[in-house]
Amino acid sequence: MRTSTRITAYFGPRGTFTEQAARAFTADAELVALPTIPDTIAAVRAGTAEFACVPLENSVEGAVSATMDTLAAAEPVIAVAEHVLPIRFSLLVRPGTDAADVRTVASHPHALAQVRGWLAANLPSAAERAATSTAAAAVAVLEGQFDAAITAPVAVEHYPLTVLATDIADRTDAVTRFLLLSKSGALPAPTGADRTSVIVVVEHRPGELAAMLTELALHGINLSRIESRPLAGRVGEYRFYLDFDGHIQEQRVGDALAALHRRSQDVRFLGSYAKADCVDSAVPAGVTDQDYDDSAAWLAGLRAGER
Amino acid sequence: MRTSTRITAYFGPRGTFTEQAARAFTADAELVALPTIPDTIAAVRAGTAEFACVPLENSVEGAVSATMDTLAAAEPVIAVAEHVLPIRFSLLVRPGTDAADVRTVASHPHALAQVRGWLAANLPSAAERAATSTAAAAVAVLEGQFDAAITAPVAVEHYPLTVLATDIADRTDAVTRFLLLSKSGALPAPTGADRTSVIVVVEHRPGELAAMLTELALHGINLSRIESRPLAGRVGEYRFYLDFDGHIQEQRVGDALAALHRRSQDVRFLGSYAKADCVDSAVPAGVTDQDYDDSAAWLAGLRAGER
Amino acid sequence: MRTSTRITAYFGPRGTFTEQAARAFTADAELVALPTIPDTIAAVRAGTAEFACVPLENSVEGAVSATMDTLAAAEPVIAVAEHVLPIRFSLLVRPGTDAADVRTVASHPHALAQVRGWLAANLPSAAERAATSTAAAAVAVLEGQFDAAITAPVAVEHYPLTVLATDIADRTDAVTRFLLLSKSGALPAPTGADRTSVIVVVEHRPGELAAMLTELALHGINLSRIESRPLAGRVGEYRFYLDFDGHIQEQRVGDALAALHRRSQDVRFLGSYAKADCVDSAVPAGVTDQDYDDSAAWLAGLRAGER
Amino acid sequence: MRTSTRITAYFGPRGTFTEQAARAFTADAELVALPTIPDTIAAVRAGTAEFACVPLENSVEGAVSATMDTLAAAEPVIAVAEHVLPIRFSLLVRPGTDAADVRTVASHPHALAQVRGWLAANLPSAAERAATSTAAAAVAVLEGQFDAAITAPVAVEHYPLTVLATDIADRTDAVTRFLLLSKSGALPAPTGADRTSVIVVVEHRPGELAAMLTELALHGINLSRIESRPLAGRVGEYRFYLDFDGHIQEQRVGDALAALHRRSQDVRFLGSYAKADCVDSAVPAGVTDQDYDDSAAWLAGLRAGER
Repeated sequence: MRTSTRITAYFGPRGTFTEQAARAFTADAELVALPTIPDTIAAVRAGTAEFACVPLENSVEGAVSATMDTLAAAEPVIAVAEHVLPIRFSLLVRPGTDAADVRTVASHPHALAQVRGWLAANLPSAAERAATSTAAAAVAVLEGQFDAAITAPVAVEHYPLTVLATDIADRTDAVTRFLLLSKSGALPAPTGADRTSVIVVVEHRPGELAAMLTELALHGINLSRIESRPLAGRVGEYRFYLDFDGHIQEQRVGDALAALHRRSQDVRFLGSYAKADCVDSAVPAGVTDQDYDDSAAWLAGLRAGER
Repeated sequence: MRTSTRITAYFGPRGTFTEQAARAFTADAELVALPTIPDTIAAVRAGTAEFACVPLENSVEGAVSATMDTLAAAEPVIAVAEHVLPIRFSLLVRPGTDAADVRTVASHPHALAQVRGWLAANLPSAAERAATSTAAAAVAVLEGQFDAAITAPVAVEHYPLTVLATDIADRTDAVTRFLLLSKSGALPAPTGADRTSVIVVVEHRPGELAAMLTELALHGINLSRIESRPLAGRVGEYRFYLDFDGHIQEQRVGDALAALHRRSQDVRFLGSYAKADCVDSAVPAGVTDQDYDDSAAWLAGLRAGER
Repeated sequence: MRTSTRITAYFGPRGTFTEQAARAFTADAELVALPTIPDTIAAVRAGTAEFACVPLENSVEGAVSATMDTLAAAEPVIAVAEHVLPIRFSLLVRPGTDAADVRTVASHPHALAQVRGWLAANLPSAAERAATSTAAAAVAVLEGQFDAAITAPVAVEHYPLTVLATDIADRTDAVTRFLLLSKSGALPAPTGADRTSVIVVVEHRPGELAAMLTELALHGINLSRIESRPLAGRVGEYRFYLDFDGHIQEQRVGDALAALHRRSQDVRFLGSYAKADCVDSAVPAGVTDQDYDDSAAWLAGLRAGER
Repeated sequence: MRTSTRITAYFGPRGTFTEQAARAFTADAELVALPTIPDTIAAVRAGTAEFACVPLENSVEGAVSATMDTLAAAEPVIAVAEHVLPIRFSLLVRPGTDAADVRTVASHPHALAQVRGWLAANLPSAAERAATSTAAAAVAVLEGQFDAAITAPVAVEHYPLTVLATDIADRTDAVTRFLLLSKSGALPAPTGADRTSVIVVVEHRPGELAAMLTELALHGINLSRIESRPLAGRVGEYRFYLDFDGHIQEQRVGDALAALHRRSQDVRFLGSYAKADCVDSAVPAGVTDQDYDDSAAWLAGLRAGER
């Protein structure tokens, strides 16, 4: 299996933002594009790839449900890194095409939606055409189906097309967060600027979620993302995706996770990994590892009969 | 403006699930399809439509960020009804086309993703093609671009196509929740089985969200959905979308909303409306309207000097 | 009943700390000493006195259970003022008696306990003798039963005795807190430095008291005293005496009291009155009266259909 | 030190309720009466007694501040047992004295207060006289100073007096709770019906005590007693005495104690011991030792890289 350890699967096709993220994660790995997010994660579960790169959330489109749902089911995999990619779009055409020649512009509907203002201002007479991905739009342009494609900047490295315009997104602050997933091996070491992700199933009764978040709060843990999803076939239960600051190797985080585990029928650890922003987590007074060591020593002494 | 009161704008094009939902909401209104979710909501804000029908969340694809983000900004509108539509797909072809003739199947990429298993089993050699919507796929089939379209069942009422197969979704439990939005007028009356939606901006510090959810819990309020989104340009603050049982005219709900309002820089009421499932909200002992009346009378008496 | 409005009953006998406190409360009222705390409070309930002065807690001896229990039962009375008296003791003898002549020293056992160090150092050969009160000790000295009495400084104003020593308490920081009770009439106006006292009966299950204190905390209310007492004959229920900063006329306090009222089978308001220390209560951001007015106006607008 | 292990010091004098409790605790130990509660506890600290028996709270008089304050300061000692003694009073006279002969009745003022109704009904013309303890009253009767003494039933075993009446307390449900204190050695083994006592110093800010009680509540711990005392010389800090169900050897209790230790500048363990009522503590689902073992194993597995 030596070879497989050098492979990073990513949600393809080639030439998309996910490929850009996969390259950012693993400069020297062999990259393999797979057609769906479940396929990509399945490759890690099956051991045919060591890592999988998938999108988790987009600041414009929101959470990527396929990633969350695939992580929630079947064999656990964990995130070992995150990458936040600014979403920039390029307009690609066949060599020799001018703006005046562009009558059709193709892309994934989400990408079209994010450049609609630019298109209205710059190519007001061009018609929008859908593609299954930004890269598929590039291929279709290459094949002559459409005149221009809205793509990730990386696409131009894969297809013999020309960049007619770049940075054309209506919003310049859009980002997508990607995770690098792995099945086995050691956890990433704590860096002091880490994030932990979990999925927890919560009984649907007043106060139960509040109690869980209070557990986190009492451990000085700062939530950075929460998302609920109803559970098919299980009335009155919800699944929550939580991201929070800290690393499972920190005592406050481990202690809080153990508390969630006691309260929930089902809690799944999705990993502790360095935050993309590298901003150190603030650890409030009273919940540092030293505080935990002190209180554990105090308790052990009392239990042993020391006064 | 008499005419406008009879218009319901919906996120088009015609022939989609959103049109199906819009019909379910307002049997006698004139329906107008608009090209984007922001356009649809803007029509209500501008008064050119009395109601707007938009999707809020899909059990497979997750939350519809465009709806949430458009509701969060600009002039407030409120939800006056919700509708939960089972997501069923049909395969439409031009009259005379057989399954054996289908070499290309078009739809919105999300729809294609939801019938991929059926396609693999039933049309293994057909190639997927993207469209900007399920209805656009139907139009493209009509125009001869593709052989078949994956659409909402309602599409066949708009286009002279034939249903080659129906109920072809891989998951039979997929649903989409739609909201009917309005700008003005009275709130829907409480039914005993109501839901309230709010957007609240929360400072990003340990315990602040837990404190807010504890407010809800202490008022006996049952959360049914929560979703966080980072706020562009406001580091350390998050926006939360909350759905919970109860109606703003109930005292426990009004009291809890007022508490959120005091804690947050920004809380936006998105409406109280009958739940699609019509299941009465459980009101725990101690937080019924009678309990609130009793405690208010007790407090007023004490303040007036009664013992 | 004109006369009765000028009468303050106090827990006697004359010449005790309680008389000192009663004088501090009501310079111009007629003071009447009654033999027990229940008798004193009963006088207010019966209308034979307008006010009653009773001790509530002593920094050395702790809470005065008779006061708490009498306040908890029967017709409600409320505290309209508090007074904190530094506990100083004098040694009284008959004129002509020298320290060398003192062979017996009488006082209430609690008072004897508080000057034991001084007696050991200054009158090592004197024997302790009990009296039912510090004033009764003075009377007994006057009658020749004992040689010296440990009394409140005020006692010398009532009995023709001589002060042999004063400020003889072993601890110089001891204080007793007294309440001035009333049955009827308006509440004292808020001063900004107020205290509110309540008795609340709490079901004895995990989290119920924590929930009540969380209600106070979420209203920004600072607890300054809590004391539980089991309820005779009601297994699994406890009565709690709470003192906290703020005045019932403040909205945060009224709102918190109403919340306690909804949670408890039984909550009794014991008054809002100026704190003896005159230190303004800190009102955290978000729970000022202005914040309450703002949130109430916001809620009322929403309920009326404003957006 | 063989001898000292056989000695139980108790707060005397002989013939009081505390002696009764001391006998109930330690049938075969040598009992030594000491004059004050601090003296009694000091004997254990000094090793001159193995155990100390002191009152902690009385259902009529409330908490015994001297016990709480002495436990809070200096070298820690812990409670190894509790005993709840029904408070019954006897009326003792010299042999030959009839009820008609009783003109003075002596006792500790607290005891007099608890039989006042009986005295009024049965000895209406007898005058009350104070003594420093119920036993001192018996001695004074023996010496002829007074005609009758209100005492603990045990007193008649020490003094050649006659029981003129017994069970004369106005309330028949009064009880006093006593603790048996020890300095060293193993903790009592858990019985399933245990109580744990702690003293914790809490910063005086809104929500801090609520947070501590929430820690207990989240660990499924049921509080049975709470009492605050201001801290002399430390403005804005309070000391709380807490009793709750469970034993420090239980994981939920140990974990909660460690959490208190992290939050507080100062927490003192006062012991885990069998409850006098022998009623098993209810351990809610999710916080049994098995739940703790499971969550700890789960956490350790995750940290070790298991999935």
